[in-house]
Amino acid sequence: MGDSIFTKILRGEIPCHKVYEDDHVLAFLDINPISRGHTLVIPKEPAETIDKLSDDAAAAIGRVLPRISRAVLAATGTQAFNLLQNNGVAAHQAVFHVHFHIIPMHDDSTGLGIVWRPGKLADGAELAKSIASKL
Amino acid sequence: MGDSIFTKILRGEIPCHKVYEDDHVLAFLDINPISRGHTLVIPKEPAETIDKLSDDAAAAIGRVLPRISRAVLAATGTQAFNLLQNNGVAAHQAVFHVHFHIIPMHDDSTGLGIVWRPGKLADGAELAKSIASKL
Repeated sequence: MGDSIFTKILRGEIPCHKVYEDDHVLAFLDINPISRGHTLVIPKEPAETIDKLSDDAAAAIGRVLPRISRAVLAATGTQAFNLLQNNGVAAHQAVFHVHFHIIPMHDDSTGLGIVWRPGKLADGAELAKSIASKL
Repeated sequence: MGDSIFTKILRGEIPCHKVYEDDHVLAFLDINPISRGHTLVIPKEPAETIDKLSDDAAAAIGRVLPRISRAVLAATGTQAFNLLQNNGVAAHQAVFHVHFHIIPMHDDSTGLGIVWRPGKLADGAELAKSIASKL
């Protein structure tokens, strides 16, 4: 993968408003927030999409999501929030380095808008077996 | 927290189309999928929202997200997908047991619809400092 803006932030070549850092993870404010407190959590390991991230790097991110989320909620006085992680242009990914969005939902309805069109699960047994066979 | 439908699935009182299970995590198909392959990944530890989940349980989920995502992509012939995790009624949470959605985005545009209204980060230095102080 090539350099992304997040690679440059990780190398310190571009500044960020850092909220958290450890050996494996960096978290900082989104420069174009969709709500106050919108924070990005990224692995230091380079991977364009989460399916290409190592198990250990993914575990390191998972481990800090509760803690960083609590801090975002405390600092912004919010209780509801979404975690979103996009993979691929078709799924709205814009920067090709894995990132989790922590997006507070505020009383003024700033936050993540979701369009949800549920269907029916027709061939669940067969599909679950197919997915399990690829694990 | 009270029992949810996922608590009952974890106890085996309600069936599910299971795709993965380990000591800490269960993954199964969403019964009302918004796209083919829509899968839920939940911790066995009970917690309504991810800010209330233990670090270890959150790490265990993070660790398996790449692997389960790869299997969903392989079984459905998809490349783009979203991970979504909702916390609180205002943020579209419907079942009050932590769950990550893995949602493939297919060529027919079934998948997650996102409404994104970016703003400008005005007080980044101050806000980042405030969040960091709550960690």
